[in-house]
Amino acid sequence: MKTKNILRLAMAQINTCVGDFPGNTRKIISAIDQARKAGCDIITFPELSICGYPPEDLLFKDSFIQENLRRLDEIRKITTQLVAIVGFVDKHKRRLFNSAAIISEQKIIDIYHKIHLPNYGVFDEKRYFTSGEGFSLYELSGIRFGVNICEDIWIEDGVIRAQAEAGASLILTINASPYHMGKIHLRQRVLKEQAKKNKVFVLYTNLVGGQDELVFDGQGMLLSDKGRVAASAFAFKEDLRIVDIAKNKLPKKQKAERARLISIDGQKREDFPKPLISVQPPKLEPVEEVFLALVLGTQDYLRKNGFQKAVLGLSGGIDSSLVAAIAAEALGKENVTGIILPSKFNSPESFDDAAALANNLRIEHKVISIQEIFQAYLKIMEPHFLGKPWNVAEENLQARIRGNILMALSNKFGWLVLTTGNKSEMSVGYATLYGDMAGGFAVIKDVPKTLVYKLAEFYNQKSAWEVIPRRIFEKAPTAELKENQKDADTLPEYAILDPVLKYYVEQDLSVSEIIKKDFSKAPRLRRGDRQSHKPAGSGLPSDRQSHKGEVLKAVRMVDKSEYKRRQSPPGIKITPRAFGRDRRMPITNRFNEAVI
Amino acid sequence: MKTKNILRLAMAQINTCVGDFPGNTRKIISAIDQARKAGCDIITFPELSICGYPPEDLLFKDSFIQENLRRLDEIRKITTQLVAIVGFVDKHKRRLFNSAAIISEQKIIDIYHKIHLPNYGVFDEKRYFTSGEGFSLYELSGIRFGVNICEDIWIEDGVIRAQAEAGASLILTINASPYHMGKIHLRQRVLKEQAKKNKVFVLYTNLVGGQDELVFDGQGMLLSDKGRVAASAFAFKEDLRIVDIAKNKLPKKQKAERARLISIDGQKREDFPKPLISVQPPKLEPVEEVFLALVLGTQDYLRKNGFQKAVLGLSGGIDSSLVAAIAAEALGKENVTGIILPSKFNSPESFDDAAALANNLRIEHKVISIQEIFQAYLKIMEPHFLGKPWNVAEENLQARIRGNILMALSNKFGWLVLTTGNKSEMSVGYATLYGDMAGGFAVIKDVPKTLVYKLAEFYNQKSAWEVIPRRIFEKAPTAELKENQKDADTLPEYAILDPVLKYYVEQDLSVSEIIKKDFSKAPRLRRGDRQSHKPAGSGLPSDRQSHKGEVLKAVRMVDKSEYKRRQSPPGIKITPRAFGRDRRMPITNRFNEAVI
Repeated sequence: MKTKNILRLAMAQINTCVGDFPGNTRKIISAIDQARKAGCDIITFPELSICGYPPEDLLFKDSFIQENLRRLDEIRKITTQLVAIVGFVDKHKRRLFNSAAIISEQKIIDIYHKIHLPNYGVFDEKRYFTSGEGFSLYELSGIRFGVNICEDIWIEDGVIRAQAEAGASLILTINASPYHMGKIHLRQRVLKEQAKKNKVFVLYTNLVGGQDELVFDGQGMLLSDKGRVAASAFAFKEDLRIVDIAKNKLPKKQKAERARLISIDGQKREDFPKPLISVQPPKLEPVEEVFLALVLGTQDYLRKNGFQKAVLGLSGGIDSSLVAAIAAEALGKENVTGIILPSKFNSPESFDDAAALANNLRIEHKVISIQEIFQAYLKIMEPHFLGKPWNVAEENLQARIRGNILMALSNKFGWLVLTTGNKSEMSVGYATLYGDMAGGFAVIKDVPKTLVYKLAEFYNQKSAWEVIPRRIFEKAPTAELKENQKDADTLPEYAILDPVLKYYVEQDLSVSEIIKKDFSKAPRLRRGDRQSHKPAGSGLPSDRQSHKGEVLKAVRMVDKSEYKRRQSPPGIKITPRAFGRDRRMPITNRFNEAVI
Repeated sequence: MKTKNILRLAMAQINTCVGDFPGNTRKIISAIDQARKAGCDIITFPELSICGYPPEDLLFKDSFIQENLRRLDEIRKITTQLVAIVGFVDKHKRRLFNSAAIISEQKIIDIYHKIHLPNYGVFDEKRYFTSGEGFSLYELSGIRFGVNICEDIWIEDGVIRAQAEAGASLILTINASPYHMGKIHLRQRVLKEQAKKNKVFVLYTNLVGGQDELVFDGQGMLLSDKGRVAASAFAFKEDLRIVDIAKNKLPKKQKAERARLISIDGQKREDFPKPLISVQPPKLEPVEEVFLALVLGTQDYLRKNGFQKAVLGLSGGIDSSLVAAIAAEALGKENVTGIILPSKFNSPESFDDAAALANNLRIEHKVISIQEIFQAYLKIMEPHFLGKPWNVAEENLQARIRGNILMALSNKFGWLVLTTGNKSEMSVGYATLYGDMAGGFAVIKDVPKTLVYKLAEFYNQKSAWEVIPRRIFEKAPTAELKENQKDADTLPEYAILDPVLKYYVEQDLSVSEIIKKDFSKAPRLRRGDRQSHKPAGSGLPSDRQSHKGEVLKAVRMVDKSEYKRRQSPPGIKITPRAFGRDRRMPITNRFNEAVI
């Protein structure tokens, strides 16, 4: 059975948890055992797999670093008959390095220090780590390979080129590359180019799982030196993906001149198991990809923080309906409770839709009217409001009573409150602090409203029936905090707003650049999404002039609501730029492009 | 009158606002005018004075950068008869530089790019800027000087040494150095060493004012080449400090060999006004310094965000009393409203103390009972609580009703809600999300409880009478959310807790290191601060064993409440490490030192 012409690699795409040293170590050791049994020559793990990623300021605790080193030693001791590449934090003279240990026969034969440290977007690696200054190559049964870490492979003419030029025919890159929509295409493009240009095979191992606002999507892969994706691991789940490379397929290279070459003894075993026939991961459509990201992000946030059950308010609108569906998918329908919290401003249709949704999802639901409590507040506040007219104070009170009730259930039963606000609302501050923003996790915080509809459609298609009732798609979005209120009274149409927000929040375009954009192709998603209170004919702005007003208004609202976002619960990043660590704006900010 | 033997320098310690280009430019131009009239040879401004500091991700907007360049040009045009050193953002080939413009006679004669970029603590400068690669020296009427920026001067054997060796006898350093307790001593120590070691005079110009969580304290100074503080600017207020240096006092240096030397024509005017007799800033005691930082931080957060008035809940406890006093000092007593929000669990003493405080401060106060609303909630929730016993759900409801009422007043009248939680509570999560944590600004968020008492004492001393009633100091701290509740039922004694938190949160000591610390010297601040429910004798832990339990408990509580802190309002940093940008901890974190 044994064939010496095959190099067998295992990509251990594991779901680690930050700070869970026992759990992460257990997963690593178990994967090594499995790979050994499968006759693998090499196994690779994600970046910082021992401590989890990103550990943030835990890295400043020496006890954290020491525990990570003790766990590395534990892994070292059980590593026999194959080579393991394990991500960990190395420490030298008070400096920290984002590192990969190369372990063979119970010895750490080398340590690679990440050279290119990302310090943009959600990344702060220069806050913690010192850059590595070089690399060795390794020779195993005649094959020469190099190891590097994440950002290293994104840099053109960087480490990978140096490793290829020094004689590597295979690059093992270990990663913790967070998901956003379309990231896989970006990654594949870069990896294909790097593999082709440098004439190397590339084994790309990625982390999978949710960590606070980030979801890591896995989707590890093997690329040939022709830039072909030769194998892929699953998206959004763990995978121990084993791939064989015929040694004669690996490009012939000159002997390493510029790099230290470390020889590793290959495994001596005679048995060589047959290749496993593994299930090929399906190709995902963009909306399905986002759906899976939201499910995994929600699941992991609860699980890793010790929660089993979640509760959320059901308004009968599209946002809370989608969040309920995601929660049921992530946690199981028996672990989700929906609360309908009507006031006199809620239409009977809203109530019916919310109840229908809960029944369709087969989640438990309760009805708790807020009207009586609201009256109690109004009575108590009346002398202090000094006859001032109804305004946002009364509107917000209703949202806050709902928030209080959900939090009371959370405090009484240990359920996590899921909030249901979307990115369009979060952007312009169309949400009530301590009201609908009150909760532990904001599932669709980074999902624009127009994408919310698409995700809901996807969910219904996937379920093969209208779990989310059709009427919820068709009615005009409303907060129902006063008579006949519609989102469109306050906000630009979502079909205009969402692209404006994308240009402004995600792409930093100036107001004048945004005004010049063509919004005529922005599809109006549904009938309800229009300014229903305006006279017929003015519903769809048709010229630049009217967009200008909407752009200025949206931008102004974004700038003015930074203080709200700063107090919002964490939620899953699915766009290239989410609010949070990804976009660090001052609250105190008088920059006002609208008047420049 | 004219004496050619004097170099006259102006330190423009101005209070800029991030993004306020018109306002910042106006201040800069006005200071240049004043300095010109005072016959100054050189005027210096703080780091990034045109755009304000720190601009954070506004720097990614090209419109922001362009506006900053337009304003620089405006300043250039009015700069005559003296040399102005102005902080701004320079851009070259898509790279940004934290820069100083050297302007003379309407020309930008040189631009210095900051070389050392801080990327620790609250700083993210490597996220935005590229490091500069060199410097020029400047010669003005026979004096050779160099310019550098903030972090540059903290680096031993860095820029300042190179500038001195290249022939500079005077260094102008422009800064945005945020305050924390004792920072001035640290700064003076470093500056004295640098001045002495490199045999240069150093003019240190610092920003003043609040920006979100940071307060810049000003306290600019001139140091002689002997390391003596020859002049100081005010703490926590604007100052145009003019200092004369006798040219023959400046150290003689060799001609610059390694650096480009730019000659500047000195002013041609014949008149040379007499030196101004300026008021010397008083020396501040540490507690006074913190008090002033809190006042300025509060004042600027409101003013720069367009608020005139503030509202807060008065419980009759020390925290809300101190915050009310700070608010009255910062905003004027006519701009502060205190709300007393009693329930049946509040003692009559609490009520009386809160009312007495409001009267003593001469701030308006209102009484709004929460009891009726609380009953309404209990009634509505009763069937849903399923007979479960009273727990934190009912306690938090009360805090949340109070939060709602304050927010309703905020929404109705446009007042900013100030929260009153201290750092000890925020550390261990002894606070209610959306309850007492609800508000726009958390004045004493970074002030440990033991320091709260000291600040309150300081305030009474400063006022020369007991504005904060004595009983408020003497009673045991309590949240009054159930019968006979005391903080000490839940928390370790503050005299133990505060040092534990300092070791753990600010210094990253491990649990085992903290347990070894000697807490016997930790002074018990006041009678109330003890575990009043325990039998006599066990109030003050007297051996290591009992501290171990308290340390483990405190650490565990800190780790478990990260999610609460993530949703807290901003507040003023006054310690070496505040929560927020300064300490970036994951919420999802299974690292648990207590069991290792």
